Amino acid sequence: MQMRPHDPPRLPTGYRCAAVNCGMKPDGYDLSVFVSSVEASAAAVFTRNRFPGAPVIVGRDIIRSGVLRAIVVNSKVSNVGTGDEGIAHARRMAAAVSREFRIPEAQVIMSSTGVIGKPLPIDRIEAGIRGISDQLVDDPLVGATGIMTTDTHPKALSLEVDGAVLCIVGKGAGMISPDMATMLVYILTDARIDAPDLDRMLRASVRVSFNMLSIDTDMSTSDTCVAMANGLAGSVDHDRFQQALTFACIEMAKMMARDGEGATKLLQARVCHAPSEATARRIARALIDSPLIKTMAYGGDPNIGRILMAIGKCTDCDIDFSTVRVYVNDRLVFCDMKRHDFDEAEVRRALAVENVEIRVDLQQGDAAATAYGCDLTEGYIRENAAYYSS
Amino acid sequence: MQMRPHDPPRLPTGYRCAAVNCGMKPDGYDLSVFVSSVEASAAAVFTRNRFPGAPVIVGRDIIRSGVLRAIVVNSKVSNVGTGDEGIAHARRMAAAVSREFRIPEAQVIMSSTGVIGKPLPIDRIEAGIRGISDQLVDDPLVGATGIMTTDTHPKALSLEVDGAVLCIVGKGAGMISPDMATMLVYILTDARIDAPDLDRMLRASVRVSFNMLSIDTDMSTSDTCVAMANGLAGSVDHDRFQQALTFACIEMAKMMARDGEGATKLLQARVCHAPSEATARRIARALIDSPLIKTMAYGGDPNIGRILMAIGKCTDCDIDFSTVRVYVNDRLVFCDMKRHDFDEAEVRRALAVENVEIRVDLQQGDAAATAYGCDLTEGYIRENAAYYSS
Repeated sequence: MQMRPHDPPRLPTGYRCAAVNCGMKPDGYDLSVFVSSVEASAAAVFTRNRFPGAPVIVGRDIIRSGVLRAIVVNSKVSNVGTGDEGIAHARRMAAAVSREFRIPEAQVIMSSTGVIGKPLPIDRIEAGIRGISDQLVDDPLVGATGIMTTDTHPKALSLEVDGAVLCIVGKGAGMISPDMATMLVYILTDARIDAPDLDRMLRASVRVSFNMLSIDTDMSTSDTCVAMANGLAGSVDHDRFQQALTFACIEMAKMMARDGEGATKLLQARVCHAPSEATARRIARALIDSPLIKTMAYGGDPNIGRILMAIGKCTDCDIDFSTVRVYVNDRLVFCDMKRHDFDEAEVRRALAVENVEIRVDLQQGDAAATAYGCDLTEGYIRENAAYYSS
Repeated sequence: MQMRPHDPPRLPTGYRCAAVNCGMKPDGYDLSVFVSSVEASAAAVFTRNRFPGAPVIVGRDIIRSGVLRAIVVNSKVSNVGTGDEGIAHARRMAAAVSREFRIPEAQVIMSSTGVIGKPLPIDRIEAGIRGISDQLVDDPLVGATGIMTTDTHPKALSLEVDGAVLCIVGKGAGMISPDMATMLVYILTDARIDAPDLDRMLRASVRVSFNMLSIDTDMSTSDTCVAMANGLAGSVDHDRFQQALTFACIEMAKMMARDGEGATKLLQARVCHAPSEATARRIARALIDSPLIKTMAYGGDPNIGRILMAIGKCTDCDIDFSTVRVYVNDRLVFCDMKRHDFDEAEVRRALAVENVEIRVDLQQGDAAATAYGCDLTEGYIRENAAYYSS
């Protein structure tokens, strides 16, 4: 099945979105809504961080019904570390959208992203939601813009599957090493899929996409991935939909990795012929997470020592290290427990591109996994050393 | 027991050291030996990385006898990823020292540190060892200089315990997140301690010092910590020696952290009143390892969100998060599940120093642990993006 994303991306039938500036950011959108004209089956996965934000705590409750009409998201303040008041504020966001669109409050899910520990300016958000129904548009990039924090561009992608449209909107940039989901991702489709099936498909796709994404190993307190299926395009083949969903989630994960804080390159680690998928995932993540691999990708140097170090630090992987082969952008650099005799200048030229792929062939099984990350640059340091919490 | 390190540090009775340039570095020492005039009880711990260097593989074999006369170390090339030839080269280093000092080859242990995957220039090393016995001095900083890679200064510390001297020499800087030991650390004493006791004491001290040190989460393939006790100062009280050893190892760990690649600050994470030591260690390490905490220390901002994130990402810790209190350089910044109302300008001033301590009080037990690390700066990126493997 060939995947051909729309250009530009578009919303499925029955969905619209809007974004406004409600006064939290000095300029630019800081508040978005995504609304379906009819009830949609819904599923969601959230961060496993033990200090979850108020919207995650409330969202886990809301998603139980498996039905949603709208998603509301603010950027700039994350509503995390805000105690009981934060919970009340999250609920007030849903209540305001419920009033504005005359839909049940229980069918509105909310997210907040930005600084932790500051009270949410709920009055501004409520004022921003009033009248937002007059601003609805069909362009998912508008909604994607209102949820940005340190992202350099809005992220949305859509494609057709079996006559239905699948649209995915997300934000990334920093504090990203999801375990159950990623930062903020919203998946909207007009396909007819019931909530339990949507939940199962969402988890399967997240597992090989956002859960294999790491910008900086730091698991956010706000990671949320919500899917809505309003059924207006009728039923679809579940296998084909699952394939399209996985494709879209991986593409969004790559977009986020490539736009990681300070990143100049997309870094992919592929581990193949592993004895188990768990081993393949573990080693792929170790490669993506290593600061020395990340700075190597930035510098464009084929430093096999750092790659061996990162594989070897997976001390919990019970594998035979003697058969390991390592490729950097398709050039063999290590085999038979020795550095392979490669042309360094040629490999350096091959690394002077925006995509760096490290492939580790364990030669001892059929399992495989790919992890997605980015290089580590002065830009990350500047962005995060200067990012003041107030 | 008060610990008063010597200034300058000195070697214990019977030990001498030498360093030379054998032509691997363009200038500066690149080869060191440490020699005892008599047989010494010995113990060692090594990296758990599954791609260990040749000196680690050979060293594990040598240390079994529990007796050493000398340690030989080269910098610039690590002899890792070099196959059977690397093993032969490591043994040739010991053989050369054996000939030069007329001591048994089996009583010489070796380390190599530097670039991975390049053949060790063994001819140069053998030439460098010839005549090195004429260069022996009493200053441990000379030996410490020959083992440096990206360290900005040689690291040695000594103190007196029960009439004996304990001297510790080490190197750090990058690819440091030891599990069994740290980069290269040599502990020399004239106390009389048999090999099994020395091994036990070494492991106890390493556990709370080098195993709680992380510069960049990347576990080296060469981590080695060797202890020698030649007995020339007679027997000592074991409890007092253990205390001195732990003190010296922690001080060396802090020296390495403060001199981490690109570091401008020492970062310490103390977790107290934890239900178990494992939990305290896990959370302390998560704080020290987080790039967002490290850049926060660099920027000097009291970003409680990042601290909560790092505690909360320890999803395997079964603790009650509601009682967590967080202090930054002794200022309370979080309690009762809410940001504490602190004076931000005042806390920022308190952070504008070379030592940043994050203290997490779980209020649910008696266990505690401290981890040692450093800030993450543009200097780390520059050093590692520019570090060419050839």
